[in-house]
Amino acid sequence: MASNTIGQVIRCKAAVAWEAGKPLVIEEVEVAPPQAMEVRLKILFTSLCHTDVYFWEAKGQTPLFPRIFGHEAGGIVESVGEGVTDLKPGDHVLPVFTGECKECRHCKSEESNMCDLLRINTDRGVMLNDGKSRFSINGQPIYHFVGTSTFSEYTVVHVGCVAKINPAAPLDKVCVLSCGISTGLGATLNVAKPAKGSTVAIFGLGAVGLAAAEGARIAGASRIIGVDLNSKRFNEAKKFGVTEFVNPKDHDKPVQEVIAEMTNGGVDRSVECTGSINAMIAAYECVHDGWGVAVLVGVPNKDDAFKTHPVNVLNERTLKGTFFGNYKPRSDLPLVVEKYMNKELELEKFVTHEVPFSEINKAFEIMLRGDGLRCVIRMDA
Amino acid sequence: MASNTIGQVIRCKAAVAWEAGKPLVIEEVEVAPPQAMEVRLKILFTSLCHTDVYFWEAKGQTPLFPRIFGHEAGGIVESVGEGVTDLKPGDHVLPVFTGECKECRHCKSEESNMCDLLRINTDRGVMLNDGKSRFSINGQPIYHFVGTSTFSEYTVVHVGCVAKINPAAPLDKVCVLSCGISTGLGATLNVAKPAKGSTVAIFGLGAVGLAAAEGARIAGASRIIGVDLNSKRFNEAKKFGVTEFVNPKDHDKPVQEVIAEMTNGGVDRSVECTGSINAMIAAYECVHDGWGVAVLVGVPNKDDAFKTHPVNVLNERTLKGTFFGNYKPRSDLPLVVEKYMNKELELEKFVTHEVPFSEINKAFEIMLRGDGLRCVIRMDA
Repeated sequence: MASNTIGQVIRCKAAVAWEAGKPLVIEEVEVAPPQAMEVRLKILFTSLCHTDVYFWEAKGQTPLFPRIFGHEAGGIVESVGEGVTDLKPGDHVLPVFTGECKECRHCKSEESNMCDLLRINTDRGVMLNDGKSRFSINGQPIYHFVGTSTFSEYTVVHVGCVAKINPAAPLDKVCVLSCGISTGLGATLNVAKPAKGSTVAIFGLGAVGLAAAEGARIAGASRIIGVDLNSKRFNEAKKFGVTEFVNPKDHDKPVQEVIAEMTNGGVDRSVECTGSINAMIAAYECVHDGWGVAVLVGVPNKDDAFKTHPVNVLNERTLKGTFFGNYKPRSDLPLVVEKYMNKELELEKFVTHEVPFSEINKAFEIMLRGDGLRCVIRMDA
Repeated sequence: MASNTIGQVIRCKAAVAWEAGKPLVIEEVEVAPPQAMEVRLKILFTSLCHTDVYFWEAKGQTPLFPRIFGHEAGGIVESVGEGVTDLKPGDHVLPVFTGECKECRHCKSEESNMCDLLRINTDRGVMLNDGKSRFSINGQPIYHFVGTSTFSEYTVVHVGCVAKINPAAPLDKVCVLSCGISTGLGATLNVAKPAKGSTVAIFGLGAVGLAAAEGARIAGASRIIGVDLNSKRFNEAKKFGVTEFVNPKDHDKPVQEVIAEMTNGGVDRSVECTGSINAMIAAYECVHDGWGVAVLVGVPNKDDAFKTHPVNVLNERTLKGTFFGNYKPRSDLPLVVEKYMNKELELEKFVTHEVPFSEINKAFEIMLRGDGLRCVIRMDA
């Protein structure tokens, strides 16, 4: 990396979404230098997550365009702004869509990762410091996305949203830890916490659900029951430790009853990764009384209501929710990378596709077809 | 105690409920000797709990009469049946409405106290061993209540429902630990687990709620917010550590919003002790995102639905329920008695009334008037 870019505007390629649902266009953009508490990153690898597609389609929200999407990525610090002491040029990092200021009540709580300052904000397209974008094309600002905008060769991110990781870690693999995989993995390891030998149900066998299954496998669960409306997913799921499969469509009774019958009263833990309200309720009601814990990960619709008979609660079932797997981005992600380096966590199986940056729209097509798990985009190609 | 009663039928006084809602009648009953895994207790003190009144009124259930109610009590073992090795005549004990067989999956789980064999059963009026009652009057069986039937000078209880306690503990005080007080106390200490300095909301300031407040006081909570529809209860509640009071009737907005405003976003822990479904929902929604834990204690109506927006779950609020404060009766109650003996737990303030056994119906009247917290009934008077 040329050190003479420090303090200068960088001209580089970025994939710009000019309109909702229209293919991204690779443009030359100007990336301003980082301001106070910001860092400028050279992105080497980025992967596509459903959240990018959801906000690119902009069907349920106020559209904010032109915008640079992307929030799962691995890169290297190019330069740092005023006040940044934790990072220096050359550090290997993962940018994250949510942050850790280390100062607020949430950051100071051992139980929360929902930073008051840097918690995900999907509506804001600008940086906190001055309320402006660091991206522009001929003076026209291009909006940021969740503070990361990694579909660009260079991007500017708040230091609180950057995890410094082991420089030996291959960024084309660990980039997927920026969002979905950590979300599912942490839901199981940090929140559900299944004991060795326990039985775990996973609702939804997409990338997040399979990461939750991977967590159950790492925790030593003896039975991992995958639940999905698509029976084709079971074969893939076996690689992630899923031992049994239930398709709710194959049964006349509610899936929570099917699972209770399979498990002598219920599973020890369940993790819901679909966002469907019925799956959330089933995930809760399928855990065993006395000790069962259900963890909700999937993001629901605005008007959904979680509804259950309170006796299910009184019978000592616990309901928890999690955001980003309860990982604090800066404190915890480096340790998740180490789990991969120690070969405890297997990431290769999540990366089912790879495309060069110039073909980024193919990644969208693959996801919209429902193919595979993660498509990694190589920025240098 | 005359040792010559061992193996013999004992004739003694018991308060028999012949019909739903009619005053109890002190009768001479015959109490058969304990069978396998049973013990016969001489009851010295018993107190009245709402559950006795609820099943005596029998408005919502299949009535089971004649029956001997009573399940909060302290007594002494008179004799033991075959196979009982943990208890011997003369042991001081608390009979409990739910049990601990020490063999089932629940008893073997560190997380549960919902014993498969001896979990509360309000419909069964007989002993497990032979499906018969140990009480009779001239050959007519009188039904048991939740396996305890302590409104009798002698009663027969399954050994799994008997906690052996420190013989130095005054039974006229620790008898209240058999049910309500332990339920509230354990909900806070074992399930909500507030950290020192935290903020706790308690919904319902009856005996169970005040025991939950007592738990928060013991845990070192700095703010204890009592919520009740009856403002008169606040004065009494101060003795139990309640520092602030909210009457939902005094506000135009939902009480969860009132509490969130009082606490900069929500309390750290809440404990619901009313059984009202609206209070349950409010107790859940008033805890802080990121780390808040709500614990439901109150028993709901059959047709109630617990309903909340799933985003409240995803924002890292935890919902738990508890039964008997998550105490395992035999393993844990002796330690609660020790908390009282160490002066950590204050029980005197729960005992607001005392009546002789001959006036047991007065205890019902006091409770129906909503006076005080616990009325202790002296069996020898």
